Amino acid sequence: MGPIRRQQICRAAAAVVAREGFAGATMRSVAKEAGVSTGMLNHYFANREEMLTQALVYVCERSQKRYEKAIEEVPPGVVRLESLLDSVLAEDEESIETWRVWINASGEAVRVPSLRRTIEERLGDWFALVERALEGLVDVAAPQRVPWTWRIDALLTGLATQALTSEADLDGGKIRDEVVRMVLAGADRQAGRAAV
Amino acid sequence: MGPIRRQQICRAAAAVVAREGFAGATMRSVAKEAGVSTGMLNHYFANREEMLTQALVYVCERSQKRYEKAIEEVPPGVVRLESLLDSVLAEDEESIETWRVWINASGEAVRVPSLRRTIEERLGDWFALVERALEGLVDVAAPQRVPWTWRIDALLTGLATQALTSEADLDGGKIRDEVVRMVLAGADRQAGRAAV
Repeated sequence: MGPIRRQQICRAAAAVVAREGFAGATMRSVAKEAGVSTGMLNHYFANREEMLTQALVYVCERSQKRYEKAIEEVPPGVVRLESLLDSVLAEDEESIETWRVWINASGEAVRVPSLRRTIEERLGDWFALVERALEGLVDVAAPQRVPWTWRIDALLTGLATQALTSEADLDGGKIRDEVVRMVLAGADRQAGRAAV
Repeated sequence: MGPIRRQQICRAAAAVVAREGFAGATMRSVAKEAGVSTGMLNHYFANREEMLTQALVYVCERSQKRYEKAIEEVPPGVVRLESLLDSVLAEDEESIETWRVWINASGEAVRVPSLRRTIEERLGDWFALVERALEGLVDVAAPQRVPWTWRIDALLTGLATQALTSEADLDGGKIRDEVVRMVLAGADRQAGRAAV
C-alpha cells in the first residue's frame, strides 16, 4: 500500500502546486487534496521543499513516459522532433500541470540546492530524449560550447514560459515551429562549416 | 517622502523575494527588511501578490536603465548586441537579484492574471531595447510567426534559468555567445531567403 499512497499524495501535491502556486501549497492544503491527515503527509515529506521536489519528480516521470511513447515508432527526422514537441506542448490538463509545477519549481530552485539537484537529474532524462529526437538532423556529438539539448530546452521552455506567464500570442504550434526552425538553421550552419 | 518610502519598501521586497523565494516572502518579513511596521506595508500593498508585482516593477525599471546605458554609445552590430547581453548577464548582486525576482514572478504569474499583465508591460520595454540591439543584424520588421525579440528573450531566459536552477556548467559568456550565434544563424537564413 505504501507506494500507492505515496503516488496519491504526490499527485495531490502536483495538483495543488499547479493550482495555487508553491506559495499557496501548504502541507495542510495538500493533505486535504489527498484526503489524508497532515500527520500522514509529514510521514512522506519532511517539509514543504520536499513536497515540491516529489511533486516535480512525479509530473516529470509521468511526462517522460508520455514523451517516450510519442516518438517510439516515429522514424528519425523532422517528424520525430515535431512529434516530441507536440507531446511536450499538448494543451490538455496533464501537460499544463507539468509546466506549471516545473515553472514553480524553477522559482524555488534558485535558492534551494537540493531542488537544483533534482532538476538536474530530471533534465538528464529529458535531454536523452531530445537527443533521440535530433537523430538525423544535427550532429549532437560535434563539440559545442552549449550542447544542442540545452539550447533546445532553453528556447522551448523560454517560449512556453512566455505563453503561460505573459499575454503573448503564442500557442503550441508556433512554439514547435520555432524550435524546429532553430534546429534547421543550426543544421545549415553545421553543414556549411563542414563544407569549408 | 511618499515616493522615497515606496522605493525603500519595493527594494526591501525585491531583496526578500530574491533571498527567500516568493513562498518565503511574507508581509511581515518584508516589513522587517524595510524597517517599517506591517501596518505601513499594508498601506502600500493590499496583499502579497501586489507586493511581488511592485518588487518586479522595481527591479525591471532599475535594470532597464542599466541596459539602456550599456548600449547608448555603442554603434549598431554584434558589439552592441553583446554589450546588451553582457549587461543582462552580469553577475553582480543587483543583476542576480533581478533574475531571481523575475523567475519567482514567472512562477506566480502562471495563476495570477494581474501579474501576467505586469510582465507583459515589462517585456514591452525590454523588447524595444532588444530591437535596438538587433539593428544592422537582422530585419526585425520582416514578417515572422514568432518575432525576433521573443525568440531572443526565450533563449536568453531559458539558458539563464538553467544556470540558476540546475547544475549546468553555464556562465554569462557562454549564454551570450549562444544568443549571438542564434541571431547570426537566423541572419544567414534571412539573407539566403532574400537571395532566392
